[in-house]
Amino acid sequence: MKKLINGVESVVPDALRGIAAAHPGLRVDVENQIVFRDSGPRPGKVGLVSGGGSGHEPLHAGFVGYGMLDAACPGEIFTSPVPDQMIEATTAVDGGAGVLHIVKNYTGDVLNFQLAAELSAEEGVEVASVLVDDDVAVRDSLHTAGRRGTGATVFVEKIAGAAAESGAPLAEVARVAGTVNARSRSFGVALSACTTPAAGRPTFALGDTEVELGIGIHGEPGRARSAMRPAAELVRVAMDALHEDLPLSGDVLVMVNGMGATPLIELYVAFAEVSAYLAEKGVTAARSLVGDYVTSLDMQGFSITVCLLDDELVRLWDAPVETPALRWGR
Amino acid sequence: MKKLINGVESVVPDALRGIAAAHPGLRVDVENQIVFRDSGPRPGKVGLVSGGGSGHEPLHAGFVGYGMLDAACPGEIFTSPVPDQMIEATTAVDGGAGVLHIVKNYTGDVLNFQLAAELSAEEGVEVASVLVDDDVAVRDSLHTAGRRGTGATVFVEKIAGAAAESGAPLAEVARVAGTVNARSRSFGVALSACTTPAAGRPTFALGDTEVELGIGIHGEPGRARSAMRPAAELVRVAMDALHEDLPLSGDVLVMVNGMGATPLIELYVAFAEVSAYLAEKGVTAARSLVGDYVTSLDMQGFSITVCLLDDELVRLWDAPVETPALRWGR
Repeated sequence: MKKLINGVESVVPDALRGIAAAHPGLRVDVENQIVFRDSGPRPGKVGLVSGGGSGHEPLHAGFVGYGMLDAACPGEIFTSPVPDQMIEATTAVDGGAGVLHIVKNYTGDVLNFQLAAELSAEEGVEVASVLVDDDVAVRDSLHTAGRRGTGATVFVEKIAGAAAESGAPLAEVARVAGTVNARSRSFGVALSACTTPAAGRPTFALGDTEVELGIGIHGEPGRARSAMRPAAELVRVAMDALHEDLPLSGDVLVMVNGMGATPLIELYVAFAEVSAYLAEKGVTAARSLVGDYVTSLDMQGFSITVCLLDDELVRLWDAPVETPALRWGR
Repeated sequence: MKKLINGVESVVPDALRGIAAAHPGLRVDVENQIVFRDSGPRPGKVGLVSGGGSGHEPLHAGFVGYGMLDAACPGEIFTSPVPDQMIEATTAVDGGAGVLHIVKNYTGDVLNFQLAAELSAEEGVEVASVLVDDDVAVRDSLHTAGRRGTGATVFVEKIAGAAAESGAPLAEVARVAGTVNARSRSFGVALSACTTPAAGRPTFALGDTEVELGIGIHGEPGRARSAMRPAAELVRVAMDALHEDLPLSGDVLVMVNGMGATPLIELYVAFAEVSAYLAEKGVTAARSLVGDYVTSLDMQGFSITVCLLDDELVRLWDAPVETPALRWGR
């Protein structure tokens, strides 16, 4: 294992120091592992807090800023953050209008955010939660009851963030967040496993000519092992899975996401196939992202997330955002 | 070799189709391999054209747009584009104020851009060129007489692009581009080699506990092979090399660039070390980029590029930009 780190124990705090140095618009509490907007809470604005295990960068710290999250709580690599982080973040970002927790569906995250919500409520903060569970690959998995939460998290954080920024009340921000999740589906394919610093070896074994279809973002098993195939065929497997689960129609927002070690030129090759597939079905990729947004350390592979758009979602997607990883319109 | 492609021959056109589908602000001539701004030339604005081998994405197509390039000419993987592409791009983007060629210092690129400049001049386009040669690692290399051009290309394209957008004449845009190159230095470290689709195997052999210091962006050899070391030590080797070549002082623009397969969390770990090194020297990282900007397919590793800022360069760096890979302030 060769990793650009100083030691297994210090990866997360070292990276947080780097995030603090690189992004003056963020305030980073390295000791407690919380990344805040530097501007602090805005009175009357709903606060947005997310978090989860590290190793998925830029998720979530890269999405803290104007028009998106107010705070992110990174846990250790592939490990849920603890309730204390979440409570501190929640109480700190509350501007009196309450706080929305955006929670990916993994058992640890769900339990810890639930506890944090209860304890924050006891401190007088109104908290709502949205559970992201967009991954159609498997019904239950190693770390999940129900579907896993993956790429749609980016869409939920962006669109709910825009709603909060516009002054929408908590119930409304929670509603739109739920709508985005309900209209989004994801499917991932791994060309290689990933290696956590602590384990020092790949999370699973994948042969030189094999791929894993329906992979999760921690190396959880997918639906099936398959022989390596051309990009067009791998994309078709993923798109068929999405379309079967939620028939695609109209205008969609689509993300072709790299898992951390996939060259961008290959993601564009995949996006061309996604675009062709959608055209075949009479569906328009009205908005898109191509790049690394929800990664899995050094895994090679990609995931596709599609969200069925309506006018409200387009307007909120297009609203200004200014974070390390998404930035436009301002 | 497992790559997310349809075939070795079709990687570049397939990716160009993906770029066209993902970025409605770009116009892509897939057949001739040229990526243009969709808006076309603006009368009186100096046009900016760059290009080079593919496999370094987002460079250069990801930097086409408002405030940066007018056109990019991607060659085959790690292969210079041909003069015909450059001539077509040059004549197409000329708004009557001339065109600047931004050329990374590789022998093929230099010869082809030179020929393209001469032939474009014969067609009545005034052409100036800036050569980017920022990599301090080696004096000459496999593909280069003199220093290689690497990360500073991003700085040159951004800052010259802002000068052109502001209406500066060709001589002035060329001058500021040359200034950026003169004030910038880069150094890269590889943790793994990269594999081109055509070769199907790594460009060089690197042991399980070795790194290559001073690597180029095509897997060219660096200064030395070394045992793997903590991030802080690898960053120090790179920063010492930069500082020795061009003493660091005042405010700097610094990029910690991933080579394509390096997890973002590790790049932030490296950035924390860069920031600490600069603080030690009394130097301020006034502006920064952390992420994949000049990649080398699936190589693991990083490069650091530093540019000594002055007021003019800060103003031009901060000016609005709207491209697939850099976007702010608009």
